[in-house]
Amino acid sequence: MNAEIIAVGSELLLGQIVNTNARFLSQQLANLGINVFFHTVVGDNPERLESAIELAEKRADLIIFTGGLGPTKDDLTKETIARHLGKELVIDEDALTSIELYFKRTNRVMTENNRKQALVLSGAHILPNDHGMAPGMVIEAKDHTYMLLPGPPKELEPMFSQYGCQALSKANLAKEVIVSRVLRFFGIGEAALETEIMDLIDAQSNPTIAPLAGDGEVTLRLTAKHVDGKIAQSLLDNLENTINQRVGSFFYGYDQTSLLEEVMKTLQTRKLTITAAESLTGGLFQQGLTSISGASSVFTGGVVCYSNQVKQEILKVRQETLETHGAVSEQCARELAENATKLFKTDLGISFTGVAGPEELEGKPVGTVFIGIAIKGKPTIVEKLILGGTREANRGRAVKYGCHFLLQLLKESQNAK
Amino acid sequence: MNAEIIAVGSELLLGQIVNTNARFLSQQLANLGINVFFHTVVGDNPERLESAIELAEKRADLIIFTGGLGPTKDDLTKETIARHLGKELVIDEDALTSIELYFKRTNRVMTENNRKQALVLSGAHILPNDHGMAPGMVIEAKDHTYMLLPGPPKELEPMFSQYGCQALSKANLAKEVIVSRVLRFFGIGEAALETEIMDLIDAQSNPTIAPLAGDGEVTLRLTAKHVDGKIAQSLLDNLENTINQRVGSFFYGYDQTSLLEEVMKTLQTRKLTITAAESLTGGLFQQGLTSISGASSVFTGGVVCYSNQVKQEILKVRQETLETHGAVSEQCARELAENATKLFKTDLGISFTGVAGPEELEGKPVGTVFIGIAIKGKPTIVEKLILGGTREANRGRAVKYGCHFLLQLLKESQNAK
Repeated sequence: MNAEIIAVGSELLLGQIVNTNARFLSQQLANLGINVFFHTVVGDNPERLESAIELAEKRADLIIFTGGLGPTKDDLTKETIARHLGKELVIDEDALTSIELYFKRTNRVMTENNRKQALVLSGAHILPNDHGMAPGMVIEAKDHTYMLLPGPPKELEPMFSQYGCQALSKANLAKEVIVSRVLRFFGIGEAALETEIMDLIDAQSNPTIAPLAGDGEVTLRLTAKHVDGKIAQSLLDNLENTINQRVGSFFYGYDQTSLLEEVMKTLQTRKLTITAAESLTGGLFQQGLTSISGASSVFTGGVVCYSNQVKQEILKVRQETLETHGAVSEQCARELAENATKLFKTDLGISFTGVAGPEELEGKPVGTVFIGIAIKGKPTIVEKLILGGTREANRGRAVKYGCHFLLQLLKESQNAK
Repeated sequence: MNAEIIAVGSELLLGQIVNTNARFLSQQLANLGINVFFHTVVGDNPERLESAIELAEKRADLIIFTGGLGPTKDDLTKETIARHLGKELVIDEDALTSIELYFKRTNRVMTENNRKQALVLSGAHILPNDHGMAPGMVIEAKDHTYMLLPGPPKELEPMFSQYGCQALSKANLAKEVIVSRVLRFFGIGEAALETEIMDLIDAQSNPTIAPLAGDGEVTLRLTAKHVDGKIAQSLLDNLENTINQRVGSFFYGYDQTSLLEEVMKTLQTRKLTITAAESLTGGLFQQGLTSISGASSVFTGGVVCYSNQVKQEILKVRQETLETHGAVSEQCARELAENATKLFKTDLGISFTGVAGPEELEGKPVGTVFIGIAIKGKPTIVEKLILGGTREANRGRAVKYGCHFLLQLLKESQNAK
């Protein structure tokens, strides 16, 4: 079973957006045991789109289209496919109702061209759009399966996960099971990690090991194939054990988790609360934590203390500290973490102060970072880092290191019990 | 002059990485006046790569390959192209020297397979790699131009900008200049905006108009072609004027700017300072603002007030307000904005309170949002929204609406002067 993904949109060919949908769908299809041999991107042009369809029909059984289902004139995907397959476009009443409700709910006025989004290929199985207007479709014709998905990732991803997957499984398109597991590591470089497991990488066949580095993290994607899903899983279990015997101290979680999510889960399990005083990171830690549903069980609030005045007046950092050591200092990080913990009455407090760039500060070079962690009843810990990235990278990296130190401290204090 | 971009790499088809190279090259080629009609992604498989080359030769004059130039066994791009074109692979002495120097500089030991990276197509023009090892190549053959670039964006992007562009200009492939300008709108839906300018879209030829919606914003990409770059720009100016006569009240900026960046620029120009009290958005507004270099000139700090206790104790929201109206209320948003402004001694204060989801709160449905804006010496304004997205989308959308309201208020107060 082979698939081809055809993304439709001139904005992709002009470089206005990146084709993240192809990535998402490729991952999902791999999990279903469906091979992807080609991605194609074609513009909003019916002739070129039709030539891409004809080509894909020669080399794939399943053709997935993304984009071009919107209300505007350059959205031509379903019209072109309808003509190609000799199908009618008909109004889908459920989709129309859902579109009308969407406009009511968001207090906006529906225009005539929004009705166009409720047009579907006659005979298609409809995939509801819970996050937008254009419905998706699956249709069997000419010995092929055609799936049409909307372009915006926020609509496409939940639609495929919730309804698209199921439609493919029902059509019994998936045969050998490919299972995949991502192991996430922080605090070790890609080359260093690879050196530790070089013999495993050299010997790989099933499961395979694919290392990938990015954003200061290293991941290993383990992928196993087997007709029996349970056996495929146990192949992954064995390989994971071998890997973690060597580099387990840097391992922090699986698949799509993040350091912040692991921090939140650990705090929830241990029934601990946390606050933050963020200078360098300007709220990045707190917004990351609160982006996770359920954060209110561990987080009550915190301060963004960008100026020295706020550090002094709100967080009671001593004037002497700022005058003698500066805001970017171990002492300041310590006071920020401790005083925030008192002010917000939490079990833990974390502080970030440093020089994000592009300019140096207080004579300290770009990339200098101090992270303070106060734990009620224990000595406060301050870690110093020298990071070498851009402003955005340094802020992001600082938050990740903060989480990494937090997780290690929580692990140690757990083990000490 | 048409181009096709062929990305080679199974990691793309497995969804392990995103094809950002296609985006980068598309932008660059548009600037050179070269049309891109297709992107193709193919795995590390010589037969399928050759079929992709044959196809591209039918539909493009310039074929750009990315990836597959590395030292490992699955890097097959140049070998496959050499066979396809009937060319030899020969060692390029400059490239070999550069690779040897790279290993010396990074204190690493050069292995035999790294020599493979110095192999180039006989007769090719070499593009030096200043950020890695594999050199790029440009070769003319069979009435086509073939360009080979390395896969890592950190190597590909500077190589193309520094050497690739020039090689194409020399080959005189770039004739017409294509200029492009993105107009950004907020507060109007894609369909509504299109209705307003339908006649312009119907009549488009040069410049063209491409609407794109995403994340609650709508952009129009205007693209003009002309042999004279100045004339191309004036074609864009004229069209922009016509569009903004109709929907200018929703326009907020050009190209890669953001609502937050426009807020910051406006505050800087007006010499105003701002603080924030964020419940719903958990620091998203503040971290966005501080992600922009220079934020300290307009922002001193703020509070993330996630729990009611923090709203009361730190931001002095009255108990009566929370008991009578709840935290998600006009009254609470008003007090948060006003009290934050006092606490942080700023000219403006913005507050966000609401129900991000997935669960309702205080009997108020998911997506209910109140945004308060306090301006010193003026009556505080509170806007209510009902958003219809996921937790993450609602938080992001709330910040954008906050910026939108701020910009409108600042514009009005400017006009009133």
